[in-house]
Formats: sequence, structure tokens, C-alpha cells
Amino acid sequence: MKNNETLYLKIAKIIEDQIHHETLVMGDKLPSVRSAQKLYNVSLNTIKQAYLELESRSLIESRPKTGYYVSKSALRSMALPTIANINHFESKNTPEDLIDKVFGTISKSDVTQFALGIPGSNFLPIAKLNKGIMNAVRIRSDAGTAYEPVQGTEELRRAIAKWALVMERKITEDDLVITSGAMSAIYNALMATTSPGDSVAVESPAYFGILQAIKMLGLKAVEIPTHPLYGLDLDALKKVMPEIAACCFVSNFNNPMGFQMPDENKRELVRMITAYNIPLIEDDIYGNLYFGAERPKPCKFYDEAGLVLWIGSVSKTLAPGYRVGWIAPGKFKDKIIRQKLVQTVCNSSLYSDVITDFLEHGRYDHHLRTFRNKLYSNYLQINRAVESYFPDSTKISQPKGGFMLWLELDERISTTDLHHTALAQKINFAPGRIFSQHNQYNNCMRLTYALEWNERVENDLKKLGRLAKNSI
Amino acid sequence: MKNNETLYLKIAKIIEDQIHHETLVMGDKLPSVRSAQKLYNVSLNTIKQAYLELESRSLIESRPKTGYYVSKSALRSMALPTIANINHFESKNTPEDLIDKVFGTISKSDVTQFALGIPGSNFLPIAKLNKGIMNAVRIRSDAGTAYEPVQGTEELRRAIAKWALVMERKITEDDLVITSGAMSAIYNALMATTSPGDSVAVESPAYFGILQAIKMLGLKAVEIPTHPLYGLDLDALKKVMPEIAACCFVSNFNNPMGFQMPDENKRELVRMITAYNIPLIEDDIYGNLYFGAERPKPCKFYDEAGLVLWIGSVSKTLAPGYRVGWIAPGKFKDKIIRQKLVQTVCNSSLYSDVITDFLEHGRYDHHLRTFRNKLYSNYLQINRAVESYFPDSTKISQPKGGFMLWLELDERISTTDLHHTALAQKINFAPGRIFSQHNQYNNCMRLTYALEWNERVENDLKKLGRLAKNSI
Repeated sequence: MKNNETLYLKIAKIIEDQIHHETLVMGDKLPSVRSAQKLYNVSLNTIKQAYLELESRSLIESRPKTGYYVSKSALRSMALPTIANINHFESKNTPEDLIDKVFGTISKSDVTQFALGIPGSNFLPIAKLNKGIMNAVRIRSDAGTAYEPVQGTEELRRAIAKWALVMERKITEDDLVITSGAMSAIYNALMATTSPGDSVAVESPAYFGILQAIKMLGLKAVEIPTHPLYGLDLDALKKVMPEIAACCFVSNFNNPMGFQMPDENKRELVRMITAYNIPLIEDDIYGNLYFGAERPKPCKFYDEAGLVLWIGSVSKTLAPGYRVGWIAPGKFKDKIIRQKLVQTVCNSSLYSDVITDFLEHGRYDHHLRTFRNKLYSNYLQINRAVESYFPDSTKISQPKGGFMLWLELDERISTTDLHHTALAQKINFAPGRIFSQHNQYNNCMRLTYALEWNERVENDLKKLGRLAKNSI
Repeated sequence: MKNNETLYLKIAKIIEDQIHHETLVMGDKLPSVRSAQKLYNVSLNTIKQAYLELESRSLIESRPKTGYYVSKSALRSMALPTIANINHFESKNTPEDLIDKVFGTISKSDVTQFALGIPGSNFLPIAKLNKGIMNAVRIRSDAGTAYEPVQGTEELRRAIAKWALVMERKITEDDLVITSGAMSAIYNALMATTSPGDSVAVESPAYFGILQAIKMLGLKAVEIPTHPLYGLDLDALKKVMPEIAACCFVSNFNNPMGFQMPDENKRELVRMITAYNIPLIEDDIYGNLYFGAERPKPCKFYDEAGLVLWIGSVSKTLAPGYRVGWIAPGKFKDKIIRQKLVQTVCNSSLYSDVITDFLEHGRYDHHLRTFRNKLYSNYLQINRAVESYFPDSTKISQPKGGFMLWLELDERISTTDLHHTALAQKINFAPGRIFSQHNQYNNCMRLTYALEWNERVENDLKKLGRLAKNSI
């Protein structure tokens, strides 16, 4: 065993050297496991271990059903963002005005939107959805005028449970409640698990929507530092466990940082919340948009106590405007359903049928595969563009999926000021300041790459990079 | 003037006697104002005053564009419900389990639904809405996948402002925020105007949805007695004004009582809230469903300070399942928009276009007129059925519009028990207990008459009446 261990590390070192000497370059395919076995004359297992080792260090990456490739990140010229040192005593304040400014341009089509957390329409199966609407209207005799069941239609819940393959049948239609998008699920999950005045642990930087919901419900956010590759600092979380009422995390392809929490950390996190009997709200809306070999497990997979409230939606993969999301709220299900009844009675009808139809007949797996390939290609584009156009001191995240890139610029640069200047040039992005209640991330920004890549996008990134250079 | 006054009262007395001696019977048309003028040889104005006097006493009623008719209520054989004597020290508790039981059968088509607060599909313009959906899909190029503006589309807001004729152009598209049905508007209006622990004045009996929202937000409801014909007891409200943070009333065709608050009372109410600087949430979703001559004014019409948050929706007149409602939140507009963004981002798309299209090209006025006529006819049916089948001691409300009837049965009858028995026979109604946080209205029930009137409905009312008789 000891010998084997050394062996796989040796092979990994050989391949690593080939990458650093550019014998193997970004995008090159590695020999198949079987070919490599013959080449190095070792066991299949040793090769697999070597490749896993290289993959864990982001030097290579597996692409589903085709094999291993030298990864972009093997050739990174820019460093990873630093881990935040959060000063909990600083003034707590979500910059609402800045958020309003960033999202006030949502519907303006003449602005290049690096700010928006939804995919461009060229990523979406518009024609199939159109057909789905026509079908739904034809099949229903009521033009969608009837109320849906508060929990959501059984058909839609069944289709969602079926597609939650990653849960290995641990979820059925009974476990799910349909919500008006994931944001409504988060808001209601917070409401169901806390009382005003309570504290909620969040990742830092955090998705501003979560920070706003926490504030609106009269709760306090406790920001936990995150590693740009592995996410949540579990030791830091452990220290605050006795004083919090709930956790709210984006465990897979985190917004904004893009990290994927390792399985072992997820298991440990679930052990911790179970020991403390503290609910975990898990926003897993990006989970299907992985760049790696397979869809990562959510924390919910490891949850035996019904403490994890697992949230998904079609807003990131099919149709943002439908406002169809869902939650598997564990033991908080009845509370969530009652809250929904009081807040809005039920979801808008018809779209449930359209999404059910798509999940059942629309070749969702095919759509997701195509979508992921386009996203990955865009990620390579934006990464290259940032490396080319932005100051060399820029630090850049290394997302394992999703469609958010996080940049940390020179400390002298205020991305809030930069945003103001860029917006005047019809370029919109999300300034770092909105991702914390504390006065931090002022030199950071989040860029979405789920837009159609064209000359204008390329030019706008060039402009943005120049503006950043001029700010130092 | 004195003379004139006597004169119109004399004429009113003559007509009243004719009604009581059944010379004129229910549904008979009165002579036109001009004919009557000649008949009695008095001025036009005197006749108008006489008719108004009779109308104010519910002996006659005007039907739009056709004239005056002897009203059903002129021949009432049952008394009006009594005004509640609210014991504020009684245990405060909304009976959630009972509410769940009543609304758990929403989607069961084999149950006769006297409980549901929405019109049956035979009242709705299904074919036109179907066409509207097809059109919207054809015109949009995105299958409804894009986000709407948070405030709602400008087109829909403009169409709603245009149809708010009753406001005499005091409302524009800028004043409106689209919400996910009226319930979401009420919830958000409460949230925008109060803090946890505050007290909110409501009518008693009150729509249980409002009581639940108040409880869910950590607020206290203060129930104000209402008169079955004129609504809110303003003196009772005045006494509690110093201790409340907001009011939440259904001023027109109240749910459940059906009363229409007189204009003078509305004016006085707005004077009161303005003097105390207390916001008024006005749920006016039934306002267009009047049985009288014209659409009653909302309190919002008298509001100069921006303190009235006026709420409407299409759920009662066009399409409950679309979840399209709106609010004119006065000076709370920015707060409401921000709350909406955090809770759900925006409404489901497409339906905005469908409703805009209907309001602009669907002959909404024609639809409303037809709808009102059907509703009024159903009201006469249910009134007759209750008088025929229910115990003689039953007291019955006299709605001036909307589609809710409130019954007060013999004190010995528990409508909660009756509901249990009726549901076993596939008859659902709303027991009185759910309309208060106090232990009252236990012998009351709310019946919806916005369903297709057929033999089964008639028989089920007969059954229900028999069950009531057997409970004494």
C-alpha cells in the first residue's frame, strides 16, 4: 500500500512536469486510464489514483464520457482570491442603494450584463418551452385559471423527484414543496427555522439576496470565511455554532465564489448541524451545472435528521421568468406549506405543466449537457479575457461549475467607483461590496459568464480591464 | 326645502307600502324617474330623492342602465346577523387546523365548494384567455423565460391604472406594483407598515387570510365590530387608534359579511388615519362586483397623504390561477418593491401580457357586467334556498356585491361540527370560527355563491339546511 502510494504520486509528478514544461498544454487529452496503465506498466488503480490526485489539484479535469484533459487552471497566471479576514465588529450594513443601482438595469437590453445571475436566452430551450406552453393550454380546459394545490402539482413534484438522481431516491414527490423561484424558498426556509433576532451563519462573500432576506426578517447574519476552492471554513463555523439558529449555504458552485464544497466537508457539516440540532438551508440551484465528471452531492444527501432544507429551481437552467423553484424542507415541510398559503396561496398555474412536460419529454439531460459545455467554453473565454485585459495583480476564482467568476483587484481599486464608471459605458457587473454586510470586498467584483460570447462582450471586458488599470 | 323633504318621504312611503302589500313584488321594475315625475306630479329631483331613500333602505335597487327594481331584501324573511360583542380578553388563537381542513379539499372536484373564495370557471372568459396566451407566446420571442421588472411590466400597470376608473385618474402606472395575487400584496403591505409586536386593526368577522398573515408576521390583530350593512364601527376603531400601527380592511363587499362601507364612513375613516398618521391597507378585490348602480369608491380615493395601500387583483374576476394582483402603496412604494425583490425577484412572466391583452382588447366592461348579472342571480338563488331549507331562526347577511353570504345559525349549532358532518357528504363551507382569533362565530358560516347553479348545488344546500335543523 505504502509502495502503491508512492507510485501513483510519482506518476502524477511526471504528468505535472509535462504540464509545467508545456509538453502537455491546456485542453490536451490525457491517455485513457487503460493506455496509461500499459504506458507506465502499473495497475489500473494506480493510474486512477494518479489522475484523481491531479484532478484534486485542478491540474487536469475529467469531462463526462470522454476522459481527462489538461485543465485551464493548470496554466493559471493569476492567483486565487485571498480568504477574507472578517471583522465582526465593523458596522453591519447591506448597501441597498448599490444593489438597486446594479439591478435597476435588469431590463435594459443595451447594457452588457455581467451582473445578472441568470443565463442568457441563447442557453435556454425556447422552442421546446413554447411548444410546452401550447400543449399545456390545449390539454387544460381552463386556460390556467384554476388554483394549483398549495404544495404544488403532484406531477411537477414527481418529475423533480425523478430528476434528483443525485439523491439516489432519497427524495419523493411528498418531500417537495414548489415555490416561486429559489429566492422565495430561501426566504421561507429562513422564516420557518428562525425567530426575529436570531443569528444565521452564511458564507463570506455571500449572495446578497440571502443577506437581504436575513435582514428583512429581522435576523442577524454571521459571515463565515470561505476558501476559494473548498468553501466554508468548518473550524470557523464550529466556533459560532452555539450562537446561531440556522445555516444558509450555497454548497455547490457557490455564488459568487464558484467553489464546490468537498464531499468530506459536506459530511462533516451535516454531522455538526445534527449534533447541534441546527437546520441547514442549502441553496443548490447551480448543482447541475458542473464542469467535472459528475453532479456533486448536496449536503441533503447526508441528512438523516430532516434538518437540511434543500433548494432547487429551473431559473438557472431552463426558464428564469417562470419563477418555478422547490424545496425539500425535511421536518419543516408543514410549516413551509402553511407559510406559502398565507403569503401567496399557490404558484402561477400552467408553468408547472410546462416544466413537467419538459422534464418528462424534453430530453433534460441532453439540454444540461449542451448547456454545461457552452458554459465551460464561456468560462475559458472569460478567464482568458480577464488574464489578457485586467491588471496582472488581479486574483481570480476557479469555479468548478455554475456561471459566476469572482475577481479580487488591487487594493487601491474601488469596484463601487469602477461600477459607476462602467455603467456609464453600458457595462454592468456586481461590485464586491454587496456580497457582505461588513465594509469589505470593496476591491472585488462578480462577473457572470452565462451570456452569448461575441465581439461586444469581448470588447466590453477589454474596456473594463482598461478602466481597472486606470484606477490604480 | 322642508316641504320637498316631506314630499319625497311621502312618495317613498307610498312605494314602501306597495312593496309590503305586495302590489310591487321582488324583481318588479319601478316606473322610470321621468314617468314617476308625471305620475306623482312632482319635480324630477323629488323622485330621485325618494328612490335614493328607498335604495338606502335596501327596499329597491338600481340596476345599471335599466332602472330601479324592488329588491330581494325588501321581502327578507330572515333577520340580519347580529353585531359581535368582542371579548378582547378571550384566548387569541386562529384555528389553523380547521383552516387546513376546509382548504385541504380545494382541488377535489367531487366536493361541492361553498368554501372557496374564487369564482367557478363558468364565470370566467376561458376562451379569450386561451387566445391571449397563444398571442403572448407568438409575440414574445423568449417563451416567457426572461425576468419581468420587479415592479411589474409597465404595460400591465398602465392597463390597470386605465381600468381604475373609480379613482378618476388619481392613479397612474407609476403608483402601482404588481404582486403575486392580493394575498401577497396584503402580506407585504403589513410587512412594510409594521414591526413585529405591533397591533393591526381588522374587521370582525375578518377574512382568515388576513388574520393568518398578521400572526405570521408576529403582529397582533385588534378585531373591530362591524355592522352587517355598513361595516366598520368607527367609534370602536377610534378608541383603539392610539394603540395600533396599521389598519387592514375590506371596505367594499367585505369578506365574509358582504357589506359596503358608506362613502361618508370611508371619508371619515381616511380623516381618522390621516390625523393619527396610521397606514390603511385596503383590500378592494371585490369592488368591481357591485349589485348596485355603480362601482363604490375605495378609501384610497379620499387619501391625500399616501397612507392608503390600495389592493386589487384579477383572482375574483378573471383568473385566480394567474396570481396577478397589485397594490397602489402610496408612500410605501419603494419599500414594497424592495421586499418583492428579496422575496421572489419578480412575478411569473407571460400572464402579465395575457392580462394586459385582455384589459385592452377583451371587453372587460362587458365581461364584468355579465359576471355581475350572473352573480346577482346566484345571490337570489342562494338567498331563496337558505330561506327555504335552513332553520327559521337563521340570520343572513345582505351583500351589496361580491360573492360571499354570511349566516348566523341558532346559538346551539356548532358550525365546526356541522362542517365535519357536511364534508363527509362532500359539501364544503367555511365555518365561522376561522373568521376570528377569539372563540366566537361558532354558530356562523360563510357560503360562496360564485358557482354554477345546478340541481346538485340546490340539493346540497337542502342537505346542509337539514343537517343544521337536525343540530338544534
